[in-house]
Amino acid sequence: MQTQTLERMESNVRTYSRAFPVVFTKAQNARLTDEAGREYIDFLAGAGTLNYGHNNPQIKQALLDYLAEDNIVHGLDFFTAAKRHYLETFEEVILKPRGLDYKVQFPGPTGTNAVEAAIRLARNAKGRHNIVTFTNGFHGVTMGALATTGNRKFREATGGVPTVGGSFLPYDGYLGEGTDTLDYFEKLLGDKSGGLDVPAGVIVETVQGEGGINACGLEWLKRLEGICRAHDILLIVDDIQAGCGRTGKFFSFEHAGVVPDIVTNSKSLSGLGLPFSQVLMRPELDVWKPGQYNGTFRGFALAFTTAAAALEHFWRDDSFAEEVQRKGEIVAERFGRIAAWIREQGIEASERGRGLMRGIDVGSGDIADKITGKAFENGLVIETSGQDGEVVKCLCPLTIPDEDLLKGLDILEESAKSALR
Amino acid sequence: MQTQTLERMESNVRTYSRAFPVVFTKAQNARLTDEAGREYIDFLAGAGTLNYGHNNPQIKQALLDYLAEDNIVHGLDFFTAAKRHYLETFEEVILKPRGLDYKVQFPGPTGTNAVEAAIRLARNAKGRHNIVTFTNGFHGVTMGALATTGNRKFREATGGVPTVGGSFLPYDGYLGEGTDTLDYFEKLLGDKSGGLDVPAGVIVETVQGEGGINACGLEWLKRLEGICRAHDILLIVDDIQAGCGRTGKFFSFEHAGVVPDIVTNSKSLSGLGLPFSQVLMRPELDVWKPGQYNGTFRGFALAFTTAAAALEHFWRDDSFAEEVQRKGEIVAERFGRIAAWIREQGIEASERGRGLMRGIDVGSGDIADKITGKAFENGLVIETSGQDGEVVKCLCPLTIPDEDLLKGLDILEESAKSALR
Amino acid sequence: MQTQTLERMESNVRTYSRAFPVVFTKAQNARLTDEAGREYIDFLAGAGTLNYGHNNPQIKQALLDYLAEDNIVHGLDFFTAAKRHYLETFEEVILKPRGLDYKVQFPGPTGTNAVEAAIRLARNAKGRHNIVTFTNGFHGVTMGALATTGNRKFREATGGVPTVGGSFLPYDGYLGEGTDTLDYFEKLLGDKSGGLDVPAGVIVETVQGEGGINACGLEWLKRLEGICRAHDILLIVDDIQAGCGRTGKFFSFEHAGVVPDIVTNSKSLSGLGLPFSQVLMRPELDVWKPGQYNGTFRGFALAFTTAAAALEHFWRDDSFAEEVQRKGEIVAERFGRIAAWIREQGIEASERGRGLMRGIDVGSGDIADKITGKAFENGLVIETSGQDGEVVKCLCPLTIPDEDLLKGLDILEESAKSALR
Amino acid sequence: MQTQTLERMESNVRTYSRAFPVVFTKAQNARLTDEAGREYIDFLAGAGTLNYGHNNPQIKQALLDYLAEDNIVHGLDFFTAAKRHYLETFEEVILKPRGLDYKVQFPGPTGTNAVEAAIRLARNAKGRHNIVTFTNGFHGVTMGALATTGNRKFREATGGVPTVGGSFLPYDGYLGEGTDTLDYFEKLLGDKSGGLDVPAGVIVETVQGEGGINACGLEWLKRLEGICRAHDILLIVDDIQAGCGRTGKFFSFEHAGVVPDIVTNSKSLSGLGLPFSQVLMRPELDVWKPGQYNGTFRGFALAFTTAAAALEHFWRDDSFAEEVQRKGEIVAERFGRIAAWIREQGIEASERGRGLMRGIDVGSGDIADKITGKAFENGLVIETSGQDGEVVKCLCPLTIPDEDLLKGLDILEESAKSALR
Repeated sequence: MQTQTLERMESNVRTYSRAFPVVFTKAQNARLTDEAGREYIDFLAGAGTLNYGHNNPQIKQALLDYLAEDNIVHGLDFFTAAKRHYLETFEEVILKPRGLDYKVQFPGPTGTNAVEAAIRLARNAKGRHNIVTFTNGFHGVTMGALATTGNRKFREATGGVPTVGGSFLPYDGYLGEGTDTLDYFEKLLGDKSGGLDVPAGVIVETVQGEGGINACGLEWLKRLEGICRAHDILLIVDDIQAGCGRTGKFFSFEHAGVVPDIVTNSKSLSGLGLPFSQVLMRPELDVWKPGQYNGTFRGFALAFTTAAAALEHFWRDDSFAEEVQRKGEIVAERFGRIAAWIREQGIEASERGRGLMRGIDVGSGDIADKITGKAFENGLVIETSGQDGEVVKCLCPLTIPDEDLLKGLDILEESAKSALR
Repeated sequence: MQTQTLERMESNVRTYSRAFPVVFTKAQNARLTDEAGREYIDFLAGAGTLNYGHNNPQIKQALLDYLAEDNIVHGLDFFTAAKRHYLETFEEVILKPRGLDYKVQFPGPTGTNAVEAAIRLARNAKGRHNIVTFTNGFHGVTMGALATTGNRKFREATGGVPTVGGSFLPYDGYLGEGTDTLDYFEKLLGDKSGGLDVPAGVIVETVQGEGGINACGLEWLKRLEGICRAHDILLIVDDIQAGCGRTGKFFSFEHAGVVPDIVTNSKSLSGLGLPFSQVLMRPELDVWKPGQYNGTFRGFALAFTTAAAALEHFWRDDSFAEEVQRKGEIVAERFGRIAAWIREQGIEASERGRGLMRGIDVGSGDIADKITGKAFENGLVIETSGQDGEVVKCLCPLTIPDEDLLKGLDILEESAKSALR
Repeated sequence: MQTQTLERMESNVRTYSRAFPVVFTKAQNARLTDEAGREYIDFLAGAGTLNYGHNNPQIKQALLDYLAEDNIVHGLDFFTAAKRHYLETFEEVILKPRGLDYKVQFPGPTGTNAVEAAIRLARNAKGRHNIVTFTNGFHGVTMGALATTGNRKFREATGGVPTVGGSFLPYDGYLGEGTDTLDYFEKLLGDKSGGLDVPAGVIVETVQGEGGINACGLEWLKRLEGICRAHDILLIVDDIQAGCGRTGKFFSFEHAGVVPDIVTNSKSLSGLGLPFSQVLMRPELDVWKPGQYNGTFRGFALAFTTAAAALEHFWRDDSFAEEVQRKGEIVAERFGRIAAWIREQGIEASERGRGLMRGIDVGSGDIADKITGKAFENGLVIETSGQDGEVVKCLCPLTIPDEDLLKGLDILEESAKSALR
Repeated sequence: MQTQTLERMESNVRTYSRAFPVVFTKAQNARLTDEAGREYIDFLAGAGTLNYGHNNPQIKQALLDYLAEDNIVHGLDFFTAAKRHYLETFEEVILKPRGLDYKVQFPGPTGTNAVEAAIRLARNAKGRHNIVTFTNGFHGVTMGALATTGNRKFREATGGVPTVGGSFLPYDGYLGEGTDTLDYFEKLLGDKSGGLDVPAGVIVETVQGEGGINACGLEWLKRLEGICRAHDILLIVDDIQAGCGRTGKFFSFEHAGVVPDIVTNSKSLSGLGLPFSQVLMRPELDVWKPGQYNGTFRGFALAFTTAAAALEHFWRDDSFAEEVQRKGEIVAERFGRIAAWIREQGIEASERGRGLMRGIDVGSGDIADKITGKAFENGLVIETSGQDGEVVKCLCPLTIPDEDLLKGLDILEESAKSALR
């Protein structure tokens, strides 16, 4: 495998290619193949971008059909048949059955574009500048989004420009068992000199992906919604990583029965890994004036097409969601066992997550790296997350066959055992 | 054409669909077709994203070939064969023949992602926070990029969060004939109490697209490079709209013989309208640590593939660039004649631009809208730019057949005449 | 009493003259006299600026002696005999006996000038932009200081400019009994994605004056010092209100045995109510270059003179501090009784504070205003503090005769009883 | 003269004591005396704070009379007889004769306090965050004011926190003879993508003191007022250094016949060098809510008293202003001659200023320092200003006797000659 050109020409900023120093060529569902022909089980899935697996045949066929004729590929924010088809499908398959009434903004195809648009919309709608965000939250790295992202790695690489407009509060569980962190938020809201500028909105991940697979309690999320309503604050759920079925429902907030004012989606939204994102907003919040937020790639018709195909294929009924939940339980059970074994070695470890967004917290990045490094040797692509990379994270395709899932779990278990014994 | 769903579900922020209230379906090279079967000549080309036309057959074939097998589509920042092929092609076809030595960062697939990365890199490399930008500059709308973008429309829609870290100076020509605006910049740099924080970098478009097709003088650009060198300031050329051949050379700065420290590309880079962007940097500026800037879609293999195909097909020799220059002269000549006719009607008007990035300044957005509105009725998609939308702007595909080009120019001339007579 | 001119000409921003709508003329120690000849006991003492009472004879005599000759009044930052005398006295009377080694900056004569200088010094010394501050902290209202001040009243009156560079954390007790709020700080410091930018310094009041007479625990303060040391963070004690003997020692932090890296003093520092402030810093932190921070009134020789006289007269031995502690116990005891009586009326109330910085928290600003309003009718000037003005606050002169102190306490008790009965 | 304690204990930030390394003790009108008994003519006058000279007998007598009884010294923002007397006097002596109708805010006693209040008031009144300021402007160093101050020395010492909310434009003359810099301002205001956020206000010094004694043209100032009116922007004149008679009229803007919306005064306002400042505002702009801006020393009764005495003594008729103008002409003539002599030595030099705010620009700080250093040896205290300290600056007391004025000018001339010959 020739990597010299890649190593020479690509910026030092590259990172995954250091953990997985091979050249990938092919990929199908939960399998990756490198240039030497070696296969890997994929428990990373594009960091949650490939919920329907690599090269899903139905979604891909929709793309090929669209490409077979000279259908428009790039449409700015024109009306296109592809966009209309996506919106109709999204409304019929996702919004209506859930009783949701949202307008849709296509803010440019990346998650951080969506977050920038969402928080700006919240500010414009409420006439306040502050956005509350949570410890270990990750919402993107462009400067607006970065104000709500906790990672020092990014925050310290802005060349000395502090971010403006975000206030961090402790996420569920951050202050330990028995402390409801929302007590602090509620106290600050009622406190005229607590230093918290009354926020326009709160942005929250229901399961923090980059932050370490921290799943907030459903009661906590429900209470957060209530606090927002009581104080005229907008609830923004960033469902970029946890959405599109990852937790066992299309939207991750469905578990808690909350209805956010604003939602961001991206990553798996296109179904095939194409760049795509959207912002959902309650119609009365749509205070945008024409053209006030823009971006060149906000009308990428190929993504509209594959996204509609994904919705058609997987979300017409509940069976897919149920499959995800079933597999999630398998992972939870196996991760629980692995964590128990690790604890027996004298290392604190615990299982966590929701649906197929699962992790094992092993307490340190070094230990986690040993496990995932060994796993890669054994044919499993799996990554870590958390503030110190201390959580071994499973984001396998939701479509993974049981055979591959179990094989991947076996590899992980063996790798943990050989790494830590 | 059914537009109700689109009108109902899409956010008010949509803008092009107001000027062109039809549903587009198909597109080939410089022709767009709406759902009713009506054809339009396309002088907008995805706001400069479709330099090689819609659905260019060679580029599309490369995409179809790639899709024909289960090649990886979404690869985070893995090493992939697709990325390697792109980098090799870019080096061989573009960098080497021009004597350029750049490293490449893929910062996420949109222009604003690239600008955020570029200015942050400049700040980190120089340890200074300020970025000089120019009147009428447009560099994106995420909060970091917005600090360098002049449009009030965006700047006033941040919900009360002022941008931080950009200082505006007058672009070439802004202070009128006979004033070299760089005198002001140079004076400020040497002035310890002029209020200009010594910048890490200067970001500049050699032809301002959104700002009104303002082409800076080549001497001015050369002098700007000299000032930057003399004061240890990085020169960042934002070639997102003016690059990829738009001005008659691959990079717009080649005309002036300058070598920027950092370059941003996007829009037409993928060749087919797929979201894609890159940051080029002199190797010694690559101070990024692994993972300090990220984004989900920075390894979109389909775009690597089409981008490489575009380079192969159009840039192996100079013939394409020469064609662009030839067509640019046609447009310049016709725009000059139209402008002259408009002046005869007592309206100030003038032609401007470089290569196939051309405009007619008619002095007011109302007049420009009348012309482009009439043009759309007559089968030509053409937009305006400038601070008041006062410039009728031609960004036709560089690949436009002469027949379509001349037909489009005829329509524009007739439209101007019927609108203003 | 003629107030029309005052009401007509002075800005709406005036506030104390609304609570006390009389024209004051004379004042001696703890007594104020209005133009109608009515006397009031003063439990406000210039919001803590008149620790030695109004027109203290010894301090005033020093001023008169200085004025008797043409001694320099305003000396920029010249060397003057007055400044030298102050520095010598401060070193001999205050620093040396306490084993403290500080350099002194005169940053301009107001508290907010001192805070701006202190936090900027911390940032410059550590090369980090963030300053941790605490809920209900008050450190001034100029934009730099305001970043560390919690009051919404001020924070929302910046015309839409968010403050930059301050992070709020919960003060001691903020999360309720049994929660050490420093656990949260320590957790955030160790958390690479908690959203807390590693601070240059922590600014803290050991007793929060404007924030509601919240006295932090001495163990808490000691632990805070330890955390700062462990993480190379500077500890800045803002002793503007709590210093100069208010808590029963010259510096409020002496009680806890901590040694801050930086200290701010103002308010009672001049002894007679003249504008004066200083920043104390450990010598190795003095990274200022000449002239990097300035202000016209940083060499106000009258204040140097009165300040030196105050130190001479009150701080040569411990007797004054002991007197303050004795009186503080009287107030504490009486406030405790008043609070108990209020609780008997079914209103939550509690006594709090340290030394002669004492308050009764009555739970609401309305109730507190009723009490202080009635007190003013009865001849006692006393104010409220806290986020809702819910704390009746005693900041009487430290020099108050027992007779006046007891009379003031009697008035307060009667006023509370007649207001709440 | 003992300076060890001063050198050891005072922060490195001290600056004037480096240029004048003596210990000053006494001062009368335009004479300073050091501890060794040496006398100096004072052409610095507290950087413009001592317009009425050191220890003016009439003003001092008012202070002594006030102190003779137990009149209140420190009054927060109480109504006091001292404040009322000041306001009545200010209205009668200054405002009414000039047909001005202003309300008055006492924002704390320093200039930067006043500027912070003024720009915040402008923002609150207009609902916009931006303040336009000018090259070489100096308006204070607290973070809000610093956004409008051009000096890098201060701007680069904020520990990496960029200022927010100020936009710099070229001051009159900055772009050379023949260019009216307001053309640029006006063009930017009308330009929707020029990058200038529509400002709430413009802050301007009519003669820039720290910036190098740059006096704007009166027509330029009048035009600036017109532009502000036309665009609903507030005109803020910072008259902290140029006001109180320095230019030959009480307010420096009287020369141009403009009426600012907001005015800041400080420095010489108290008459005796006591810290004191005020903000004047058109009554309809007084949008402050009670207590929205505060500060401990905003009711310093001694300064009210001396300020009223200064107005009484100097401003009841025009004679004092005429004297200032007469002396200003003497200085202008002599400075012109000195500049001419310097030019004869082959060094570019020119005279500039208005009233008794006068300078000789000698092109470099080194040359200027040589002259002022020699002058100090010869018994004249005189300082430099300008971005490089290249302007030898005369800010002598307005009350200077002709004898001292001429002697000072003689010393300066001799010093220039001996320094440069």
